[in-house]
Amino acid sequence: MPLQRIDLIKGRSSAQRRAIADAVHRALVESTGVPEKDRFQIVAEHEREAIIFPPEFMDVEHQNPVLVQVTFSSGRTLDQKRQLYARMAELMAEAGVPTAELIVNLVEVARDNWSFGNGEAQYAPVPRME
Amino acid sequence: MPLQRIDLIKGRSSAQRRAIADAVHRALVESTGVPEKDRFQIVAEHEREAIIFPPEFMDVEHQNPVLVQVTFSSGRTLDQKRQLYARMAELMAEAGVPTAELIVNLVEVARDNWSFGNGEAQYAPVPRME
Amino acid sequence: MPLQRIDLIKGRSSAQRRAIADAVHRALVESTGVPEKDRFQIVAEHEREAIIFPPEFMDVEHQNPVLVQVTFSSGRTLDQKRQLYARMAELMAEAGVPTAELIVNLVEVARDNWSFGNGEAQYAPVPRME
Repeated sequence: MPLQRIDLIKGRSSAQRRAIADAVHRALVESTGVPEKDRFQIVAEHEREAIIFPPEFMDVEHQNPVLVQVTFSSGRTLDQKRQLYARMAELMAEAGVPTAELIVNLVEVARDNWSFGNGEAQYAPVPRME
Repeated sequence: MPLQRIDLIKGRSSAQRRAIADAVHRALVESTGVPEKDRFQIVAEHEREAIIFPPEFMDVEHQNPVLVQVTFSSGRTLDQKRQLYARMAELMAEAGVPTAELIVNLVEVARDNWSFGNGEAQYAPVPRME
Repeated sequence: MPLQRIDLIKGRSSAQRRAIADAVHRALVESTGVPEKDRFQIVAEHEREAIIFPPEFMDVEHQNPVLVQVTFSSGRTLDQKRQLYARMAELMAEAGVPTAELIVNLVEVARDNWSFGNGEAQYAPVPRME
């Protein structure tokens, strides 16, 4: 159920962009119970000047940030969110992205705010008459 | 009041992209009471590798998905949302997109979270002194 | 804490795109207490046909709109939002964008929905044992 938007600056290889996308999804699966197959990601590359960011904010320095915006159903605990950020940063590092560069924003929506095809609200199905 | 983001893989014609955008807006108008003229859409094309999706999820198969993320004011009923998904899928099919390929996510916000120009909050106007 | 998405039609100069981004951020800082350094913006240019908008909606006419979607933490008052729209429009005009062209949408999220690097939830830190 997440819709994952990953925005980054041009210059990384296709393989690294894929590794970044893998890291984001893997962290969601491991930390927040997202199904393995529930993976819808948009990886958008931008010119350097089209991503504006501070060289430093909250004691974290940025040179080439990866902006991750995940929309998913509400209900995750604060602890799960903390685990998500920490695990995503770990996996980013394995993908060659310094943990300082990972910016994450979560947007939470109701479970009936999704359709995964066929015009159905799969998480809020119409009750069947037996 | 909706802001409609439509993300898809390159390869569809300009005419089909327009038909897809028409389908999304038409479904919003018919199913959720969005005004006809309230149409703000961003149709973004991506390379094949930049949209990552599962070949199958929740018994729906995907080959060339259209990802639709609609931000609008909260207050729609579950029934309206179900009608929205169903109608959007129907209209997509008329536009040549298999219903299995339509992924929809709704993000709901407060009515005062919009400005439609001139720096005003048109849905939460300042009360006038008479 | 805002994530700012600015979507516009190709044709504006690099300097004007920067001035637009400056205007959006400045208004957030002045009207809603966003820290000066808390600036993460994605400025995406699109072909004319990829941004679909009404020539007129709610008595405001559009020819070349700038779509601004700001995700930030909830808690701003209606008055702050009104000031934000008004100030952003003023600053847009100084940047050469008619105030009619500024469309704004706010998405509000919980404070623990952010990580600004290092895998931490900076706005919901783990309490330290002393």
